[in-house]
Amino acid sequence: MMARTIQQVVEVTFRYPVEFTEHLFQLDNPVFRHAVAPGSSAKKVLVVVDDGVTKAHPSLVSDVQHYCATHQLNLVAPPLVLPGGERAKQDSAHVVTVQDAINTHGIDRHSYVVVVGGGAIIDLVGYAAATAHRGVRLVRVPTTVLSQNDSAVGVKNSVNAYGKKNWLGTFAPPAAVLNDRHFLTTLDDRDWLGGLSEAVKVALLKDAAFFAFLEEHATALRARDLAAMDHAVYRCAELHLQHIATSGDPFEQGSSRPLDFGHWAAHKLEALTRYELRHGEAVAIGIALDSTYAHLEGRLREEAWQRIVQLFLNLGLSVWHPLLSEKLDNPQDPGSLIAGLNEFREHLGGQLTITLLDDIGRGQEVHEMDHAVLKRAVSLLERIQKQGEVCPTPTPAR
Amino acid sequence: MMARTIQQVVEVTFRYPVEFTEHLFQLDNPVFRHAVAPGSSAKKVLVVVDDGVTKAHPSLVSDVQHYCATHQLNLVAPPLVLPGGERAKQDSAHVVTVQDAINTHGIDRHSYVVVVGGGAIIDLVGYAAATAHRGVRLVRVPTTVLSQNDSAVGVKNSVNAYGKKNWLGTFAPPAAVLNDRHFLTTLDDRDWLGGLSEAVKVALLKDAAFFAFLEEHATALRARDLAAMDHAVYRCAELHLQHIATSGDPFEQGSSRPLDFGHWAAHKLEALTRYELRHGEAVAIGIALDSTYAHLEGRLREEAWQRIVQLFLNLGLSVWHPLLSEKLDNPQDPGSLIAGLNEFREHLGGQLTITLLDDIGRGQEVHEMDHAVLKRAVSLLERIQKQGEVCPTPTPAR
Ligand SMILES: NC(=O)c1ccc[n+]([C@@H]2O[C@H](COP(=O)([O-])OP(=O)(O)OC[C@H]3O[C@@H](n4cnc5c(N)ncnc54)[C@H](O)[C@@H]3O)[C@@H](O)[C@H]2O)c1
Ligand SMILES: NC(=O)c1ccc[n+]([C@@H]2O[C@H](COP(=O)([O-])OP(=O)(O)OC[C@H]3O[C@@H](n4cnc5c(N)ncnc54)[C@H](O)[C@@H]3O)[C@@H](O)[C@H]2O)c1
Ligand SMILES: [Zn+2]
Ligand SMILES: [Zn+2]
Repeated sequence: MMARTIQQVVEVTFRYPVEFTEHLFQLDNPVFRHAVAPGSSAKKVLVVVDDGVTKAHPSLVSDVQHYCATHQLNLVAPPLVLPGGERAKQDSAHVVTVQDAINTHGIDRHSYVVVVGGGAIIDLVGYAAATAHRGVRLVRVPTTVLSQNDSAVGVKNSVNAYGKKNWLGTFAPPAAVLNDRHFLTTLDDRDWLGGLSEAVKVALLKDAAFFAFLEEHATALRARDLAAMDHAVYRCAELHLQHIATSGDPFEQGSSRPLDFGHWAAHKLEALTRYELRHGEAVAIGIALDSTYAHLEGRLREEAWQRIVQLFLNLGLSVWHPLLSEKLDNPQDPGSLIAGLNEFREHLGGQLTITLLDDIGRGQEVHEMDHAVLKRAVSLLERIQKQGEVCPTPTPAR
Repeated sequence: MMARTIQQVVEVTFRYPVEFTEHLFQLDNPVFRHAVAPGSSAKKVLVVVDDGVTKAHPSLVSDVQHYCATHQLNLVAPPLVLPGGERAKQDSAHVVTVQDAINTHGIDRHSYVVVVGGGAIIDLVGYAAATAHRGVRLVRVPTTVLSQNDSAVGVKNSVNAYGKKNWLGTFAPPAAVLNDRHFLTTLDDRDWLGGLSEAVKVALLKDAAFFAFLEEHATALRARDLAAMDHAVYRCAELHLQHIATSGDPFEQGSSRPLDFGHWAAHKLEALTRYELRHGEAVAIGIALDSTYAHLEGRLREEAWQRIVQLFLNLGLSVWHPLLSEKLDNPQDPGSLIAGLNEFREHLGGQLTITLLDDIGRGQEVHEMDHAVLKRAVSLLERIQKQGEVCPTPTPAR
C-alpha cells in the first residue's frame, strides 16, 4: 500500500446575459419572460422586491402580477416585499424568510427566484437562493446605479454577520441580470451620484476615454441626465464584466483584487461611519486617497491627479471625511485607518496587494504603503475638500 | 436609449490534490503539513473532528496537536470535537458552532479549516466553511469508505433543513482531500461494506475490469482485507474524480446526473427508513432495482444482471428492503416509491433523467420508467433476498 496522489482539476463555466432595458414589466417588453421561461416549459417564479422600490413605484407589485398572468408565467405567490438597504443584510431572519418561501413554494434548481431592488437586498436574496438546494436560479433586477453598474452584474452575494460586513456569502453567478434604467429616476441624489464612483474606478483602471466621457458629462450627470447615466452605467457594467471574464480569478482564489481599487479605505470608512456613508460615497474618498498617495509618491503626475480629484468634486462627491483625519493612525486603536490596511492584508491572507495608478487608465499592484505619505495625502484632501477646489500639491512630485 | 445585451461567460478553475496515505498524523508523514502550509507562510489552521472517530482513535486529538507543534503549524485552538453521523447535519446549531470558531480565530480566505470524519460531518463543516467569508480553504480528511471513495472527493457540501436531506448547501471544491486508510480499520461492518456500493456503481457505469476486481475480491472485502479495500477505494475515487473533471457539468447546472445511478430509489428508501438504512446500503438496493428493471425490460442481458445481484449478495449487502414492496405504488401516498420518481423529476426540473445499464461498464440515459415493470423488479428482488441466491427471471428477457 503506497502513497499516491490524484491531481484533480475542475473547470466550471457559467453563462448569463446582462440586459439593458426600460419598463421591464410593461406588457409588451419581452425581456423578463425570456429570462424566466427559456424554451417553453412553465418554470416556477418567486419574486422578492425591495420596499424602497415599491414605495417609489407603487404599482410595481401589481405590474409584476399582471405581466406574469398575461404571459402565463408560473408566479408561485404575490411578490414578497422585504426591507431594502443595509438593514436587509443585517438581520439573518430575512434569509430565513426567503428560504421559507423557496421551500413552501417548491422552488427547485431549475426554477427562478427574482429579486428587484438595490445592491443590499440583491446580496441577501442571492445568498438565500445560492444555498437553497445548493443554488436555485437567480434573476437580478437591480434598481440603483451601484447595483446596475457593479454589484449585481458580478458573481458574489452576502449578508453581514458577527457585526462584520459580508461575513457570510458565496460566489454564485446569476441566471440573468436585467437592468431597467427607469428605476434609476426615483433614486435619492445620494444613491444616484454615489454609484458613479464605481464608474470612475473602472475608468481609471481600464479606460481613459471613458474617464474623459465622465469628465465631459459631470455636470449633466449631476443634473440627473438619464442619457448620460445610461452610458455611464452601460460602460461601467461592461468593463466590470470584462474584468470578471478575463481576470483569470473570478472567484478570488488568489490575493490580487484590482477591482478593489480604493476600497481598503472605503470599507473602513463605511464601518467607522456605521454605514451612514454609502458605499459609493466611501469609494470616492478611497479612490481620491489612493490617487493622492500615488501622486505624492511620484507615481502619478500632477495633472492626472488633479483631474481625478476635480471629477469627484464636479460630480458632487466628497473626497474627504472628518473621520479620515481623526482616525488616521493610532496604533492603539483598532478602528484606525492604518489598522484597516492591516485588516485588508489579513483578509487577503498575508500579502498586502493594493492597486495604485500610474496614469489615468492604468493601474499597478504594490505590496506596501508608506504611512507618512498616507498622512500627507489625507491632509491634502482635507484642505481641498474645505476649499472646494483642487490646490497644487505642497511639495512638487519627484 | 436602446435595448442592449452583454453575454457574460465566467470560467472558473479549481485544483486540488487527493492524497492516499496512512497514519496522516504520524510525525514523519509530510502529507498533512504540505496540504496546510504550501510555501513557507504560517497560515492558520482550525481542525474539527468527528466524535465517532475520536472514540475509535482516542489519541487522535493529541496526535494532531503534537504534529502541528512539531511542524510549527499555526493550530489556532485544540481540535473541536463535534457529533458525527447524520445528527451532525440535522442540527443547524453545529453550523453556527463551526462559524463561531472561524470568526473567533480569525480564519480568513487563505487559512485552513480541516475536517476529520465521515461524510456527514464533512458535509456540515464544508457548508460552514464555504459560506464563511464566501469560502475559506477546506481540507477534508474522510474516515469512512463512502467518504474516501465518493462523497469527500467531490465538490458538494450540505446540511439538512425543513426535514429534507441536503436542503442547504453549496458547490465548493476543497483545497485538498487526504485519505488515510488506517481510519477504515475501526469502522463498523455496516460502514465498511456500505461504502462499497459506490464502487460497484462507478464500476457498472465506467469500468468492467474494476467490476471484475470487485467480484474476485468480494470474499476478501467482506472479511475486511485492507489491501483489497485500498484498491477498491482508490479506483472508485479515481473514476469519480475523472467523471467530475470530464462530465462538462461539475456543478450540476443541467439535468443529467449519471453518478446518481440507482440513487432515486436509494434516497427515497433512506427517508422511508428515517435514515436507519445507511446511504451505501440504500444505494445497493437502488442499483439492484434499476439493474433488475433494465434486465426485465430487455436492455441488460440475464448473465450481466445475475452478476450484479450476486456481487451485492457476496458483499453482504441487501438487494431488497421490506419498505420497497410495502411502499411501492400508492398514488395517494406521497411516501410511495413511485412518488419518489416524481420527486426526482421535479428536482431535476421537469425532465426525468435516469441512468440504466446496457451492459456492465456502460450506462444509458432514459426519460421514463414503466411502473408495471418496476413492480415486477421489486417482487423478483424480494424473492432473491429471501432465498439468499439469484434465481432465474420468471419470464425470459426479450
Ligand atoms: N455583491 C457584490 O459584489 C457587491 C459589490 C458592491 C457592493 N455590494 C453591496 O451593495 C449594497 C449597496 O447597494 P446600493 O448602493 O444599491 O444600495 P442599497 O441596496 O442599500 O439601497 C439604498 C436605498 O435605496 C432604495 N432603493 C433602491 N432602489 C430604489 C429606486 N429605484 N428608487 C428609490 N429607492 C430605491 C433602497 O430601498 C435603499 O433604501 C451594499 O450592501 C454593498 O455591500 C455588493
Ligand atoms: N457531499 C456529497 O457529495 C455526498 C455524497 C454522498 C453522500 N454524502 C453524505 O455523506 C453522509 C454519509 O457519510 P458516511 O457514510 O461517511 O457516514 P457518516 O458520516 O454518517 O458516519 C457514520 C458513522 O461512522 C462514524 N465514523 C466515522 N469514521 C469512523 C471511523 N474511522 N471509525 C469508526 N467510526 C467512524 C461516525 O461518527 C458516524 O457515527 C450522508 O450525510 C450523505 O448525505 C455526501
Ligand atoms: Zn465597490
Ligand atoms: Zn451516493
